Amino acid sequence: MSKELRWGFLGAGGIAPTVATDFQIAGLKIQAVATRDLARTNAFADKFGIPNRHENYATLVADPEVDIVYVSTTQNFHERDALLVIEAGKHLLMEKPFTLNAKQAIAIQEAAKHKGVFVMEAMWTRFLPTMVEVFKVLSQGDIGKPRIVYGDHSQYLPVTKAPRLSDPELGGGALLDLGIYPISLAVRVLGLPKAVTGKATLSDRGVDEITSMIFEYEDGSHAILETSMVTAGPVSATIHGTKGRIEIERSFYEQVPFTVFDVDNNVLLRYEEKIEGRGMQYQAIHVEECINSGFKESPIMSLSETVAIMKVMDDIRSQTGVKYPNE
Amino acid sequence: MSKELRWGFLGAGGIAPTVATDFQIAGLKIQAVATRDLARTNAFADKFGIPNRHENYATLVADPEVDIVYVSTTQNFHERDALLVIEAGKHLLMEKPFTLNAKQAIAIQEAAKHKGVFVMEAMWTRFLPTMVEVFKVLSQGDIGKPRIVYGDHSQYLPVTKAPRLSDPELGGGALLDLGIYPISLAVRVLGLPKAVTGKATLSDRGVDEITSMIFEYEDGSHAILETSMVTAGPVSATIHGTKGRIEIERSFYEQVPFTVFDVDNNVLLRYEEKIEGRGMQYQAIHVEECINSGFKESPIMSLSETVAIMKVMDDIRSQTGVKYPNE
Repeated sequence: MSKELRWGFLGAGGIAPTVATDFQIAGLKIQAVATRDLARTNAFADKFGIPNRHENYATLVADPEVDIVYVSTTQNFHERDALLVIEAGKHLLMEKPFTLNAKQAIAIQEAAKHKGVFVMEAMWTRFLPTMVEVFKVLSQGDIGKPRIVYGDHSQYLPVTKAPRLSDPELGGGALLDLGIYPISLAVRVLGLPKAVTGKATLSDRGVDEITSMIFEYEDGSHAILETSMVTAGPVSATIHGTKGRIEIERSFYEQVPFTVFDVDNNVLLRYEEKIEGRGMQYQAIHVEECINSGFKESPIMSLSETVAIMKVMDDIRSQTGVKYPNE
Repeated sequence: MSKELRWGFLGAGGIAPTVATDFQIAGLKIQAVATRDLARTNAFADKFGIPNRHENYATLVADPEVDIVYVSTTQNFHERDALLVIEAGKHLLMEKPFTLNAKQAIAIQEAAKHKGVFVMEAMWTRFLPTMVEVFKVLSQGDIGKPRIVYGDHSQYLPVTKAPRLSDPELGGGALLDLGIYPISLAVRVLGLPKAVTGKATLSDRGVDEITSMIFEYEDGSHAILETSMVTAGPVSATIHGTKGRIEIERSFYEQVPFTVFDVDNNVLLRYEEKIEGRGMQYQAIHVEECINSGFKESPIMSLSETVAIMKVMDDIRSQTGVKYPNE
């Protein structure tokens, strides 16, 4: 029987309560937590019944009752926090965006290899039942060869709603926080592009409010992707192939229905499955399976793919002039 | 009371029977027809009860009972046919794409000005009740300031289904025939872009099978547009603004429903109106109104806008390497 892992939560940012709730739904064991503030740590621990409460990140990663650390600090701290976890010999699941840039991601990849720990970007979407089914449809060839991935992730997140995203010091902008989802989908479906074009509209503070992207592939396929934090877009994605298409409904990166059509617009399949919680538990279940199988990387969200995606985002930012002060 | 115009049909290509049916629904008068082949001309005339049958285009445009000519030949002949109509002093409604390139469109524009006739690109979509309503919603400010137009027109039209589109001699490719629709929508909503980026995948014969586009605007708005003739895409369009969005459903360029949402995804309005026919009559009713009001151009689909859109498509083709042998 496989060993149950004991999770430590490093940071308890915006997404952490949702993750903790989903972990509880799946019966995963949250053993410890540390935030920057003990009162906040205790409040979070009380809410989720977490036994070990730490005054700082250093004691959390040193906790012998912690096997794997889930990091949900802001991305400007991801490299620092990841290296802290890895140096302590703990496995790591880290919120997206993985880092600010590829250089930081490579530093983490190298440290992980050196210490022999498992590290994964928390691209939870890939592990949702609906997305597993999308890739089953693709692998069966139901839509033929995929030629175009078309996806939008535009959410209205002005400074009053999400101050973090407006702040260049915190690695703000639409691309890293929202754009990562359609980018990750495109790379999972079509692989790594041979060329990337990005155009952006920047805020007064120099982060991207809108980024439009075209990815070109060796075989002539395209991905055409949109992200914005100043508008609410369709937030849908379509994969068109030579024999049909898959339309994933609004909030395509969540557990939502999808429909498969042939090229004559006949419905081949409509898939809809309700799950408990938001679905952030599936990635963690996968992580536990990987670690119990002795894997150092996920076959579905590998570190090398994370690094490659960070390079794509570096490329886009270099074309659009988004540079963070602390990179 | 305004004068009823007498229409002549020059060519009776793929779309002509649909147009003729819609004209009949609206009670418009089709007075004459000419195709390249008298048997075909007679068959078309019989079907739609058209009295004047011409053996060639020259006698059609010379017909004193014809006030305005609707041209539906393939785009490689548009400049030639338009100039024939205009030189005969007749008004003109010409199928899209208006011409192969801007140079040809300008030649037509200049001839029309010289002869004082009315000329319009048959961008019928703009005159559909649903699209009139979309622009009412925009002008009321219900979605705030439009920032992003996101649109796909990908139809599966392989050589077996639409041989014309595969043929460079006939001005084939996805961009001119399908891409014109999302481009025209973007230009109508956001105006003329300051910069255009186009990336394409070409067929063995050198026409574009897939073209992905980003339009950038002075005010930081974007249009992100997709067209393909090798896949069936969502064929939907979304206009996102600072206060909400308009989602136009599948086959966005036809009479289809649309929904207006605020930035929190609440439905503000769902508009759905059935019409008789496909809706190609509304453009003709508008043309008759324009001519009866003494206009030489439409205020909704002006020749200068048609020329500007042809320049945008020239720009895209020059970036993607699509060149027609006969231009």
